Amino acid sequence: MPHVKLAFIGFGNVARSLVRLLERKRTLLKENYDITFATTGIATGKHGSAMDPTGLDAMECVKAVEAGQYISSLGRLTATDNIDLIKNCGADFMFENTPVNHSTGLPAIDHIRAALEMGMNVSTANKGPVVHGYHELTALAKSKGKRFLFESTVLGGAALFSVFREAMPAADLHSFKGILNATTNLILSRMERGESYEDAVKFCQNIGIAETDPTNDVDGWDAAIKVAALITVLMDTPFTPQQVERTGIRDLTPEMIESAKMQGKRYKLVCSAERDGDKINARVAPELVDASSPLYGMVNSSTGVTFVTDVLPDYSITVSEREGMRGGPQETAYGLFADFVNIVK
Amino acid sequence: MPHVKLAFIGFGNVARSLVRLLERKRTLLKENYDITFATTGIATGKHGSAMDPTGLDAMECVKAVEAGQYISSLGRLTATDNIDLIKNCGADFMFENTPVNHSTGLPAIDHIRAALEMGMNVSTANKGPVVHGYHELTALAKSKGKRFLFESTVLGGAALFSVFREAMPAADLHSFKGILNATTNLILSRMERGESYEDAVKFCQNIGIAETDPTNDVDGWDAAIKVAALITVLMDTPFTPQQVERTGIRDLTPEMIESAKMQGKRYKLVCSAERDGDKINARVAPELVDASSPLYGMVNSSTGVTFVTDVLPDYSITVSEREGMRGGPQETAYGLFADFVNIVK
Repeated sequence: MPHVKLAFIGFGNVARSLVRLLERKRTLLKENYDITFATTGIATGKHGSAMDPTGLDAMECVKAVEAGQYISSLGRLTATDNIDLIKNCGADFMFENTPVNHSTGLPAIDHIRAALEMGMNVSTANKGPVVHGYHELTALAKSKGKRFLFESTVLGGAALFSVFREAMPAADLHSFKGILNATTNLILSRMERGESYEDAVKFCQNIGIAETDPTNDVDGWDAAIKVAALITVLMDTPFTPQQVERTGIRDLTPEMIESAKMQGKRYKLVCSAERDGDKINARVAPELVDASSPLYGMVNSSTGVTFVTDVLPDYSITVSEREGMRGGPQETAYGLFADFVNIVK
Repeated sequence: MPHVKLAFIGFGNVARSLVRLLERKRTLLKENYDITFATTGIATGKHGSAMDPTGLDAMECVKAVEAGQYISSLGRLTATDNIDLIKNCGADFMFENTPVNHSTGLPAIDHIRAALEMGMNVSTANKGPVVHGYHELTALAKSKGKRFLFESTVLGGAALFSVFREAMPAADLHSFKGILNATTNLILSRMERGESYEDAVKFCQNIGIAETDPTNDVDGWDAAIKVAALITVLMDTPFTPQQVERTGIRDLTPEMIESAKMQGKRYKLVCSAERDGDKINARVAPELVDASSPLYGMVNSSTGVTFVTDVLPDYSITVSEREGMRGGPQETAYGLFADFVNIVK
């Protein structure tokens, strides 16, 4: 029976949703997988850290952070910094959820390297270490007999990497095409219904899926980093977001969107990559799609991707909003949870 | 390094495609998974059987069957029947691909039981033993420390059961909805383009995806058995095709289809199931869907299913034809291959 000691590095919405999900599924994990767990270390961005190799009350820490309080008094020990906490909290499994750093993947890569060197398994929702550290960190994990997984980095927490890893063994991926950024897809859907670009962006900011500075979404950077992550992992080829040819949605005018609609078409921010001999060509750009495309039906905050392999017809995974449930921390938390169960079971 | 001895019970198009796929991926299986394999038993429906615990030339047997020849002279030993072959061929892994028996699952269940009792792992493309024997055979496999898998039974060989099993652990499935029968979907798409029902059925028979007697497809039996298989496995509740409320497509007139088209809608043979307290309600029936439904875009021989769980927004898997590649034996063979790799690796 695996009893797993958990460390949380980064304790924002996603990590706190994960604590709640783990508590909700605690009995089921014990009954179906014989997995039990305790939390021995938590490092937050702004509310201090707590550490106790004999076990912390993670829910108490969630409540403290959500009440704006420091958590340091909730652990028996204190850590000088994140690396110190990783080294001394006695965990077997680390969830890395610090803010993404698109250009270097730091400090997440340092956290993950330290955890793997301590013999922990690691799951992260952070795209930085996938794009900037996948090959190094995977090799390090392997050398320690551990795993480094990151299901939540693309398509929210929905199964994608694990589908390839577990469900499509020995498949050769020729190309993929999809919609990977929910925010721009929602903006375009709202503009089709007559809303201005500015109002659509504002709406996305109000519901919390776009940042105050929407550059990362509307200029295609978030989509490009996801394309780079998919190529790096599924095509086993290091690829940076900078190598992705990238055009955002800023230049799409209401007139263009209206004219597409009149022709029964829609603009989508399409992500694609394909092998071309030894090279891989990758692109994020607005494209006109018609009703015969699987992308046409992905409206509002839906995202999805179609894979072209040597072994199956086109295989698509789509994640669609249901009663407004999309892009939230619960969804991302499930990807971390799935990694945890798959590694530990 | 696992060296696996294979038995093929049933040696039709699917099994022969599987032999070809295994040969094509032989080097990759060795390099990426350290798996090597040999074939020690083959039982055909009409071309005899061949057995040799030290190894047969499976490709030679494929060629013999395709040339209309008996294969018995290609093995060192002969078997009196399929069970005798299973018991004496010395295999570790059985692929069961005899013709489906919708009402009892026999004799496939007997073959699988015998193989599991001999300590083999088993993969089948046959829906009969899933609907009629899943719980018994899974328990038997578990008691022997072996696996019984059946990825190819629904959505061709595309990953579906393994997505749930491996990629969505501890998810609670509330309901699902989809298109599971490619033949009726192709018939409906052709009728939308103005073809008569009779000509559309004939087309499907000519390309080999509909039987001479199309009852099984057009009356919804194939869809119902797949619904029953999904409920049995993913909702862990024994369910028979007879329990599925079932209406086929025979009563859809060209006028109804044309009138739907005028309203921007399409008829689809929709498969659905949902939990209702302790009960499960399941249905196969023509439904009108509009462009806002993910089913609307599934045209021709595309199939797919949307899952509603407690942990993610709506999660859909779709398999679409590509250059006519759909529903063929290569696709089904890949599901068996994926089971093999996942069990043995």
